[in-house]
Amino acid sequence: MTQLIGISGSLRKSSLNTALLRSIDELMPKGATLSIASIEAIPLYNGDLDIEGGPPSVQALKAQIGDADGLLFATPEYNFSIPGVLKNAIDWASRPGFQSVLAHKPVAIIGAAPGAVGTARAQGHLKQVLLGTLSEVFPYPEVLVSKAHERIQNGQLADEPTREVLRKMLEAYVSWIRRMG
Amino acid sequence: MTQLIGISGSLRKSSLNTALLRSIDELMPKGATLSIASIEAIPLYNGDLDIEGGPPSVQALKAQIGDADGLLFATPEYNFSIPGVLKNAIDWASRPGFQSVLAHKPVAIIGAAPGAVGTARAQGHLKQVLLGTLSEVFPYPEVLVSKAHERIQNGQLADEPTREVLRKMLEAYVSWIRRMG
Amino acid sequence: MTQLIGISGSLRKSSLNTALLRSIDELMPKGATLSIASIEAIPLYNGDLDIEGGPPSVQALKAQIGDADGLLFATPEYNFSIPGVLKNAIDWASRPGFQSVLAHKPVAIIGAAPGAVGTARAQGHLKQVLLGTLSEVFPYPEVLVSKAHERIQNGQLADEPTREVLRKMLEAYVSWIRRMG
Amino acid sequence: MTQLIGISGSLRKSSLNTALLRSIDELMPKGATLSIASIEAIPLYNGDLDIEGGPPSVQALKAQIGDADGLLFATPEYNFSIPGVLKNAIDWASRPGFQSVLAHKPVAIIGAAPGAVGTARAQGHLKQVLLGTLSEVFPYPEVLVSKAHERIQNGQLADEPTREVLRKMLEAYVSWIRRMG
Repeated sequence: MTQLIGISGSLRKSSLNTALLRSIDELMPKGATLSIASIEAIPLYNGDLDIEGGPPSVQALKAQIGDADGLLFATPEYNFSIPGVLKNAIDWASRPGFQSVLAHKPVAIIGAAPGAVGTARAQGHLKQVLLGTLSEVFPYPEVLVSKAHERIQNGQLADEPTREVLRKMLEAYVSWIRRMG
Repeated sequence: MTQLIGISGSLRKSSLNTALLRSIDELMPKGATLSIASIEAIPLYNGDLDIEGGPPSVQALKAQIGDADGLLFATPEYNFSIPGVLKNAIDWASRPGFQSVLAHKPVAIIGAAPGAVGTARAQGHLKQVLLGTLSEVFPYPEVLVSKAHERIQNGQLADEPTREVLRKMLEAYVSWIRRMG
Repeated sequence: MTQLIGISGSLRKSSLNTALLRSIDELMPKGATLSIASIEAIPLYNGDLDIEGGPPSVQALKAQIGDADGLLFATPEYNFSIPGVLKNAIDWASRPGFQSVLAHKPVAIIGAAPGAVGTARAQGHLKQVLLGTLSEVFPYPEVLVSKAHERIQNGQLADEPTREVLRKMLEAYVSWIRRMG
Repeated sequence: MTQLIGISGSLRKSSLNTALLRSIDELMPKGATLSIASIEAIPLYNGDLDIEGGPPSVQALKAQIGDADGLLFATPEYNFSIPGVLKNAIDWASRPGFQSVLAHKPVAIIGAAPGAVGTARAQGHLKQVLLGTLSEVFPYPEVLVSKAHERIQNGQLADEPTREVLRKMLEAYVSWIRRMG
């Protein structure tokens, strides 16, 4: 079994990106699953608190990431970059440095936005951050779910063309993870 | 009087960047002051809580920024970008959109790091974020305080060459703010 | 009179970005004009040839930029960034360093693309480059002309909503240049 | 045998980055070689000339890349990004789109600069570009050769600590390429 962890960059209850992640488990290829890790309880990063692995919520997140075969980030775009909330969770998970659970972990990115442009700038920043954590960034055409409030209805990705784009991407991503093994 | 607000990207008590900001008031040109705004109490951004101007700590930060003639960010670099904590404060302050207190606000950036490379990547991301908030980004050679733990002693910037670099930068920045008027 | 120089990042005869620039002169506010500078004859940058101001084509470009009150870049997106051809022209024009014709020059960016996403990544890179040359980057919502092959017909920007977006942007840009004075 | 192609971002005869690449062949691990591909003869990219695989110099570069097991870029930093000259070569090599010789090609980056800061910003941009071409970006701490004019003497990398950094990086890179196989 290939087990992915999905992390949404938004804390909103009706977040489009969280809805996108929730729709993904049934789009996964055979022998692969996705479960969602919440970053809601991760405190603001403070080096003074970064002792003995950090607070319990941080340790739990690190354990989830460490056990996973790969990560899938679903990120909105705030101010031309990823949400501070998502960067903050990565800052915790990236500790301590080049031996963190993020190092050499396969990662992929998708993003949903209500606008027409999608989340291209945020995905660019996130990739740079994840190369900084020495993660293995999946090379694939960016999945930018624009006008996401139209495609996602009642918390479910209803739009079949987008579901097909995701199915193909997930299949390629899981194959790549297995090949990297 | 030209009044600047300084914001440090680190919450650590003995943060090099906070120490840098604390050393700046006495380096400011005549007729200009800098006071420091803390982002320690700003909660994780959550759109569901972003109503009526946000929580009290956010409203206080927005008021400080709104009253200032310019901002000065002092940022460490975490994972090739700015700390999530700093981005999170900007995400709150940037609301609501293009009419936020950050829009058309003059901003400048400095950064301290213990390593040799400084904070070039973080400053690059921060500039992109601040162009996203429609802030006026001060065009000036980047001030990258490398080996900052050697230059900053007992919470004070002791290194005279670095103090001179900052004096010149602050003078140019304050002149630029006044010219933009 | 406020005189802008427009620079297109594409050398194609039927380039969408060059067509966009050609459509702009009639959209300019009163008392402002735009003329186009070609970068077609600028050679590959080579430090060994960067003597006495560079080759004649480079000197001519520098003179045009030096005389202008502001620049307007229209850039396609190649491989998530600006075309090498455009970066190459900037590399020449940026010499010698912080005293170049680009330093303190007002700059603004637009971009046209056949796809739905526009040129958000390229514009982000270009802004970072132009902050590196100490240019004054106009803070304004990005103008991303998507599906540009539909909006531009026979080498002219036919789409009235896009023309209106550009008119407003140009008016704000020229006002900003005059205020910076 | 694992065969790498090295590409320098500078055309200067006494380029520090070209010298760095020339010093690398003897630092390569067993069973691996590096040869250098020049981009000096690659013309300015022009879509009108991008027919039947492009001009002969472009076709030769594409063939070299296609035959290689991996690429190694050595890039200076011009205006906070990679040289236009290097981006231009990548723009040609990236054609046609997601089936280019760069797609799924392992790539790694080093950079030399005379200053203290190295080439962190340029490497960041180059990684984004190479993720745009769907290349496989080697996750490794950035190799930033600062004060390179002191470390490189008579066109040779004389500095033993830097040679050791490169040896380790090349060994890790070649292992990674073989594992990706």
